[in-house]
Amino acid sequence: MDRAVLEDLAAASRILVDQGVFDAAGHVSMRHPQDPGRFLMSRSLAPELVAADDIMEFTLDCTPSDAQGRKPFIERFLHGGIYAKRLDVMAIAHGHSAAVIPFGLVSKPMRATYHNAAFLAAGVPVFDIRDRFGITDIVISSAERGAALADALGDKAVLLLRAHGFVAVAPDLPSAVFRAIFTEVSARVQLQAEALGGPIAALDEEEGRKADAINLATVGRSWELWKKRVS
Amino acid sequence: MDRAVLEDLAAASRILVDQGVFDAAGHVSMRHPQDPGRFLMSRSLAPELVAADDIMEFTLDCTPSDAQGRKPFIERFLHGGIYAKRLDVMAIAHGHSAAVIPFGLVSKPMRATYHNAAFLAAGVPVFDIRDRFGITDIVISSAERGAALADALGDKAVLLLRAHGFVAVAPDLPSAVFRAIFTEVSARVQLQAEALGGPIAALDEEEGRKADAINLATVGRSWELWKKRVS
Amino acid sequence: MDRAVLEDLAAASRILVDQGVFDAAGHVSMRHPQDPGRFLMSRSLAPELVAADDIMEFTLDCTPSDAQGRKPFIERFLHGGIYAKRLDVMAIAHGHSAAVIPFGLVSKPMRATYHNAAFLAAGVPVFDIRDRFGITDIVISSAERGAALADALGDKAVLLLRAHGFVAVAPDLPSAVFRAIFTEVSARVQLQAEALGGPIAALDEEEGRKADAINLATVGRSWELWKKRVS
Amino acid sequence: MDRAVLEDLAAASRILVDQGVFDAAGHVSMRHPQDPGRFLMSRSLAPELVAADDIMEFTLDCTPSDAQGRKPFIERFLHGGIYAKRLDVMAIAHGHSAAVIPFGLVSKPMRATYHNAAFLAAGVPVFDIRDRFGITDIVISSAERGAALADALGDKAVLLLRAHGFVAVAPDLPSAVFRAIFTEVSARVQLQAEALGGPIAALDEEEGRKADAINLATVGRSWELWKKRVS
Repeated sequence: MDRAVLEDLAAASRILVDQGVFDAAGHVSMRHPQDPGRFLMSRSLAPELVAADDIMEFTLDCTPSDAQGRKPFIERFLHGGIYAKRLDVMAIAHGHSAAVIPFGLVSKPMRATYHNAAFLAAGVPVFDIRDRFGITDIVISSAERGAALADALGDKAVLLLRAHGFVAVAPDLPSAVFRAIFTEVSARVQLQAEALGGPIAALDEEEGRKADAINLATVGRSWELWKKRVS
Repeated sequence: MDRAVLEDLAAASRILVDQGVFDAAGHVSMRHPQDPGRFLMSRSLAPELVAADDIMEFTLDCTPSDAQGRKPFIERFLHGGIYAKRLDVMAIAHGHSAAVIPFGLVSKPMRATYHNAAFLAAGVPVFDIRDRFGITDIVISSAERGAALADALGDKAVLLLRAHGFVAVAPDLPSAVFRAIFTEVSARVQLQAEALGGPIAALDEEEGRKADAINLATVGRSWELWKKRVS
Repeated sequence: MDRAVLEDLAAASRILVDQGVFDAAGHVSMRHPQDPGRFLMSRSLAPELVAADDIMEFTLDCTPSDAQGRKPFIERFLHGGIYAKRLDVMAIAHGHSAAVIPFGLVSKPMRATYHNAAFLAAGVPVFDIRDRFGITDIVISSAERGAALADALGDKAVLLLRAHGFVAVAPDLPSAVFRAIFTEVSARVQLQAEALGGPIAALDEEEGRKADAINLATVGRSWELWKKRVS
Repeated sequence: MDRAVLEDLAAASRILVDQGVFDAAGHVSMRHPQDPGRFLMSRSLAPELVAADDIMEFTLDCTPSDAQGRKPFIERFLHGGIYAKRLDVMAIAHGHSAAVIPFGLVSKPMRATYHNAAFLAAGVPVFDIRDRFGITDIVISSAERGAALADALGDKAVLLLRAHGFVAVAPDLPSAVFRAIFTEVSARVQLQAEALGGPIAALDEEEGRKADAINLATVGRSWELWKKRVS
């Protein structure tokens, strides 16, 4: 395994803290670059503290390949469930940022308020764990829950978890970080726009598709800055 | 008295500043680990400045055991009143964070907006000092006021004080800090969710109980990070 | 003139930046400790940069006593007007913080949302410069405008200036700083409380008077912390 | 070319990050001081990282004069379009700050909430790229789009771009930075004022003209502070 890959994944974790998306919790993972049947994710640790040596390797059923005494996150099943169902997904971020949670609590859907949030224009489903599992502790702590969550995500880029947080997925690690950040920013913009009243001239689905293509092609400019800030 | 206990309590004070819950005021206390008839709390000092040597010891009637010339907080009666009535409470935080105060001013109750705020799902009462004491200076400055406040708290984890602030209690110090932080965060989330309109799919009481058990069991991960940030 | 007085006044300016009340503008003054017919105020300078040597002395008609080539703020007339009319006022802060300005634009009055904002409970008038001077550049740039503003302030602690900012006055410098800070915090609290809907159980006038007396007596604890942060 | 000019333009970019107006994106330009048929603008780079050597020179049709292998921003056409049409404009800032975007999504117009935002009093038009170009990727990536945007700006100081961001123009670089900053601050103020309900006593057009003249004359005080913070 290329050391630079582990460094990047650890940096992604610290970036999402630095950018205000993660607090003392939150985790980001990526599919194994050589083996699509595995994924990489930090051991159970505050995201601000993650370094390359904290990255563990899992099979898609969330079994550690070589734990070396490290304790994994319980919620790795959220990641494994998605990698199993969405072959196009190469990286996943899961957090609980304060501006996003409201949209998982009410019926008003998230919108793509500007070009950086273009990936939201296709729609943002809400996963309510009660629908399949009744009264729970809310945690995505089993393969069954992870699979149900992946079903709810469908082919979208972002999924809201009721009374919990969100998941952002992408075709590469920098784009997953980008989408997590702008899910949060767009949520703040929408909260303010909704407060002004009246309809919101958000991006429509086709505008979103076009703008997202630009974002995916130019994410490197932001990624280099974000990485520099946490090095 | 183990020095590490005093260091932890002083750190708790600085953590709550670092996390934006305390400003130039606010105080946190813990029950004496060897003697349930006593509690530990900083002398009257801005919480950002508290160090181990600032920690004083009080009997439950709020008399200093050995003041050594240090001046106690007037509001130690808030702490003493609760320790006397709630034998399960081992630590208490009291602050005035801007997102929480609104819920003590209006009739809309606080809700548990996500798993980290699970301890709110049992309900959050409001203590209006006018009900028992008429027109006052608002300060919990006597044993009588402290006892009335403890009555209003009942068996809950958080109490709002009208036009004043909040109290969070817990079975250990890290959990009291955790609850103070996520009272504040959940208040922000709820303010935004309410602004979107419509009913809020917050945690129900049983979901809250289950999620809170997880939080209490895993608080160490956050606590270590928070402590590290203020060391 | 005691050098420590000048240091304190300069610190007050930097404190109000550090606490988020001033941005690149804003000014704070104090009455001359030995001569009630004079006041002290920085030369025209961004408040973050003010040091003791930047403090100038003015007579109440806003003439510099000994300018030494330093350029005064145009808005010193706001300060002079109040010192001339309010003999109890020993210090004044004037800023434009984002949470306060809204209350000068709408008809909803500011309230004292909690004990730290007790000084607002007596009422917060709004000065609309149009009422006396018609269409202007909004700046309090003459003795006449300063006097009109002092009239609008009356015997209150805080005055809002429509489409401009606010003035906080107090019987000493630390209390003027305290009032400027908690005018801003209370405005934020009220904005959030109003958004929740329904009546707001703010401090009534008598509660405000009692709580304010406590604040004035204990402001030193906050002042020492704030000063330490900008030293 | 005077090196100090390049340093100032690079500083303007970093200032707008430091002041919370730019994030990982955003760009600021100025007309060439000796040749009104050219303008200066950073190569494609996160604004926090811009230094003097990153500044490129363009003709008004957005062709680099001497690229030296540096890659320009696609959106230079936004700048070129305005310089071609507005001979009074000497500097332009374009960003996507979260408080401003809402006003490009709804029908409620931006107002000049206080004297620092006086330049908004003349009115703030909204450019919806759909009106002329149908479904696009939102980016101002051609001379044709730049010209249409300049048409929408008219003789105003600020233009909102639907689902995208804003443009602020001014007669000199410090004033363009000032206007970008206070567009953002005033948007925050207005969002809060609107939430309080009722009409907003913003600056009228003539008050705005008078207050703006003061701002343009005194911008140096803020500019020196802002520059110092990013040096």
